[in-house]
Amino acid sequence: MPNRDVLKGDWLPNISVDCVIFGFQENHLKVLLLKFRNNKVWSLAGGFIGKEEDVEDAAKRVLWQRTGLENIYLQQFHTFGDLKRNIGAIEKHQEINLAMGRSNDDLNWLSLRYISIGYYALVDYLKVKVTLNELSDDSAWMDVDQIPALFLDHNEIIKTGLVHLRSSIDTKLAAFNLLPETFTMSELQKVYETILGKVLVRTNFQRKMLSLDILDRIEKKYSGGAHKAPYLYRLDRKKAEAFLSSAL
Amino acid sequence: MPNRDVLKGDWLPNISVDCVIFGFQENHLKVLLLKFRNNKVWSLAGGFIGKEEDVEDAAKRVLWQRTGLENIYLQQFHTFGDLKRNIGAIEKHQEINLAMGRSNDDLNWLSLRYISIGYYALVDYLKVKVTLNELSDDSAWMDVDQIPALFLDHNEIIKTGLVHLRSSIDTKLAAFNLLPETFTMSELQKVYETILGKVLVRTNFQRKMLSLDILDRIEKKYSGGAHKAPYLYRLDRKKAEAFLSSAL
Repeated sequence: MPNRDVLKGDWLPNISVDCVIFGFQENHLKVLLLKFRNNKVWSLAGGFIGKEEDVEDAAKRVLWQRTGLENIYLQQFHTFGDLKRNIGAIEKHQEINLAMGRSNDDLNWLSLRYISIGYYALVDYLKVKVTLNELSDDSAWMDVDQIPALFLDHNEIIKTGLVHLRSSIDTKLAAFNLLPETFTMSELQKVYETILGKVLVRTNFQRKMLSLDILDRIEKKYSGGAHKAPYLYRLDRKKAEAFLSSAL
Repeated sequence: MPNRDVLKGDWLPNISVDCVIFGFQENHLKVLLLKFRNNKVWSLAGGFIGKEEDVEDAAKRVLWQRTGLENIYLQQFHTFGDLKRNIGAIEKHQEINLAMGRSNDDLNWLSLRYISIGYYALVDYLKVKVTLNELSDDSAWMDVDQIPALFLDHNEIIKTGLVHLRSSIDTKLAAFNLLPETFTMSELQKVYETILGKVLVRTNFQRKMLSLDILDRIEKKYSGGAHKAPYLYRLDRKKAEAFLSSAL
């Protein structure tokens, strides 16, 4: 997949993609954010759409450029098209250009009205290797509950993405994409609780998960006195596919 | 709300809205379609987005222009951005222009690549008064199961809209928007069955609906021997709002 630079003139005007990249780290749901160079403003990973590029491919490209990952769980959830989302955009871009020592040559392009197509991605954050673009000098995984005021309407985009993630947690088994290959029932429950924003009853949760018939339990190896080590589980891809195709 | 003509040059390039207008008629789920003048090609109601217009307002305007209705249940569900959706678009537009006796002057505009933002609307079809645009000479409510090959990727748009409608039927009480003010339990069940594409058990359905605590039962008037007339119900707006706000 080619790494194409922004502002080369082969992009569609007025349309962009923004990606909410969710990861699960130390029992918290986090979002990957980028900081503009020499500036305190943080933003989502985003980009433009090539004139000869599918919209979904543009989102995949942005994700690959920023995280090094391909074949990520990626879901389009909403297109943000209010006029007011671009209010202040010119001033913000001028400020950022100034901080970066850039000229305002590209400001005509950046000050266009942009309608942005929102995607969320679910990643195993341990696999992410962040690559900054030329506009950024820092990145961070920030807790969804502690996100500062972001560039343009990116706070709103995250909030809406989270609502969509919540509503698809049961029907699309989305949460499993945030976990490593094997996990304990307790870790799985924590992911669900973090996405849903509420505490779940352990026994009910376990019963529900097992009743879905999508998990393989990995047999414990004999390891001396560690009889109390929790079972490890793995999502059974075939059973999960059967579940997903029966869900609609 | 102003009725603005297409091709006036004050539209955003490359972006459009398409509206799947669902209605419920004689126990069938239908979609409102428009036929191009002097041509056999049918399409969804759609339009462009004004340079100074919110995307959602563009969808509302298209609906209002075609149905005369305002304050319609309207849901953005997916943005269609594959390159291939425009394959054949130029030829199709040429054919339509030829059939209509129009010149191809606007073909540069129409042959742009378009990314289309899909909305579905749920309407009480009895309230709809269809107004054709200058491009159409006929309209029809077509059964979702019997839709012919449509303009561009409009079949795909309807199919995707229906999937989204299905997945929100429980959490958003969407089905009620297809019914008149008062309805029988049997009519409500039929709407659900049509959207879900399957037969439901009457007693279970009734129990479930009543347990939601969102319906008012209208007392029967004494009408001679008509003791067996079914009860009429009405959605209680306040209770429905409480249900919806607790659903997430």
